[in-house]
Amino acid sequence: MKALIYDGPGQKHLGEREKPKIKDLGDAIVRVTHTTICGTDLHILKGDVPSCEPGRTLGHEGVGVVEAVGSAVSNFKSGDHVLISCITSCGRCDYCRRGIYSHCVNGGWLLGNAIDGTQAEYVRIPHADTSLYPVPAGTDEEALVMLSDILPTGFECGVLNGKVAPGSSVAIVGAGPIGLATLLTAQFYSPSQIIMIDIDANRLAVAERFGATRTIDSRSEDVVAVVKSLTDGRGVDTAIEAVGVPATFELCEDLVAPGGVIANIGVHGVKADLHLERLWSHNITITTRLVDTSTTSMLLKTVVSGKVDAKQLVTHRFTLDGIMDAYDVFGRAAETQALKVLITP
Amino acid sequence: MKALIYDGPGQKHLGEREKPKIKDLGDAIVRVTHTTICGTDLHILKGDVPSCEPGRTLGHEGVGVVEAVGSAVSNFKSGDHVLISCITSCGRCDYCRRGIYSHCVNGGWLLGNAIDGTQAEYVRIPHADTSLYPVPAGTDEEALVMLSDILPTGFECGVLNGKVAPGSSVAIVGAGPIGLATLLTAQFYSPSQIIMIDIDANRLAVAERFGATRTIDSRSEDVVAVVKSLTDGRGVDTAIEAVGVPATFELCEDLVAPGGVIANIGVHGVKADLHLERLWSHNITITTRLVDTSTTSMLLKTVVSGKVDAKQLVTHRFTLDGIMDAYDVFGRAAETQALKVLITP
Repeated sequence: MKALIYDGPGQKHLGEREKPKIKDLGDAIVRVTHTTICGTDLHILKGDVPSCEPGRTLGHEGVGVVEAVGSAVSNFKSGDHVLISCITSCGRCDYCRRGIYSHCVNGGWLLGNAIDGTQAEYVRIPHADTSLYPVPAGTDEEALVMLSDILPTGFECGVLNGKVAPGSSVAIVGAGPIGLATLLTAQFYSPSQIIMIDIDANRLAVAERFGATRTIDSRSEDVVAVVKSLTDGRGVDTAIEAVGVPATFELCEDLVAPGGVIANIGVHGVKADLHLERLWSHNITITTRLVDTSTTSMLLKTVVSGKVDAKQLVTHRFTLDGIMDAYDVFGRAAETQALKVLITP
Repeated sequence: MKALIYDGPGQKHLGEREKPKIKDLGDAIVRVTHTTICGTDLHILKGDVPSCEPGRTLGHEGVGVVEAVGSAVSNFKSGDHVLISCITSCGRCDYCRRGIYSHCVNGGWLLGNAIDGTQAEYVRIPHADTSLYPVPAGTDEEALVMLSDILPTGFECGVLNGKVAPGSSVAIVGAGPIGLATLLTAQFYSPSQIIMIDIDANRLAVAERFGATRTIDSRSEDVVAVVKSLTDGRGVDTAIEAVGVPATFELCEDLVAPGGVIANIGVHGVKADLHLERLWSHNITITTRLVDTSTTSMLLKTVVSGKVDAKQLVTHRFTLDGIMDAYDVFGRAAETQALKVLITP
């Protein structure tokens, strides 16, 4: 079968791999019908993710059709249409039983990292009963791919951790796909303000279409001054970091009001400065989270019922044969205006 | 009247001041019967608190008897025995109505900071109705002084923010008065482990008497290794910072388990390193808080009912005439083994 293979920092190719087989009783083999590329895949290609070794098939998002299941799988059978979660969870360990699936001692982020992933014709899914979701008949599968990672990540790490509430004020730093997914799902809770901050005029225009009440281009405006002016001088109730560099995290420290929350979503490669000399008395909360995908079923219903239009995040479409081009377009997002690129094996 | 007056960094004296008068309709004048010295007073004397100007009477803790009240005060009258909260709150502003009294726009930490404090024979208490608490008849007033600041600080900033829960594991970094107050109040929630970490053998011995399940002298033991060995290699559910320097905060980053909380209590003078390159995926929460004293009534009942023995924090007693000696004893706590020093005008 065809698969996109990581060859070490800066290197990848579309190659031939053996089709995966059932290895454990809880496995399923899924024929991938749609997958996509995540910013995290670009991190891997930069060499930032040492757990992902050369030779690995990349990808942790996708939908597909079950081809075969191990004898211990009871929720799924051959022919079922399924959504693949980016987090594999055994459902049985201490972390799983507390809902912290991202830290499952037998799973976590495995796909396209510790084991072969979804940017291929077929993928093996361990602990299939608790790592796949049934797709309701007739659902638009392109929208569902957004449920593998990006929507639960924005929602759990940003909106839920950030305690977005009716009437509250929210600033989202970073209007990339994850920031935009956060913007979309934040609106479930009816905040009075959602301020989007970025340096990309196109992404800010998208943010406005997606429901931002104000956008700030940090190249041309004083972000802290504008946010303070919009919030009676106090700052926002929720500041969401959706970039993953020290400057944007530290900006959130300047934007949050006393009693507020900084919810970190970004994948960080280096430490940041925490200004405790000012914040110790500020009554704030800071949260970090690798998505647990504990809300996937809930979000699936919001997509199916039309409460959120996830498909609008898809800007480009490719076949698996064109995946090298897809990486190129996604990697040059500032020029190509790419958000999510959909790949159909 | 006599008062302990701050004369600028490194300088203070016991001097004569005019007795305070009612200035606003909501004021009360309280004759101080017991007060104490806080680590924060030492911070002021080091010049770390620019809001406290030379000429200020220090002190933000105490109990006393109401001498006079303004015409708008309805909860208290002359002769009432009262507990003075370190936080003054108007009860009417947006922050007060959300219970964030520490950020009251008309109050907050005023006593011994922005206005004259309690290390004197008399003190003026603004917004008396919402900044004083009635003392039940027959209560030991020495124990009650611990309710002005230290018990609610340990409880709110450490125990509540840290989400201490039955069966959970707790590490408290710093076994000074605040760390010990946290240790005492953490036991309300029946955690399975409370590990106390310090560099002072006497304070660790006190911690053991106060209920610590394990003490670690960080000069002679590898704190991270010991804590990991006590928690199945995962770290603690709650790591509480009760010192206020970068090294102890950063130690908490190494001690907290995935899904856990770092609750900061310490007053910090400089920034700390936040290791997001490791913690971004660790599903942790970090909290900061200036005590709101929103739990003072609740804690008062635990002291009165004997659920907590707050008086055991008192190690030394002085009259107001001896307050310069009291500062000396408190400032050399490592030698004098002082915890809280009680001062009786």
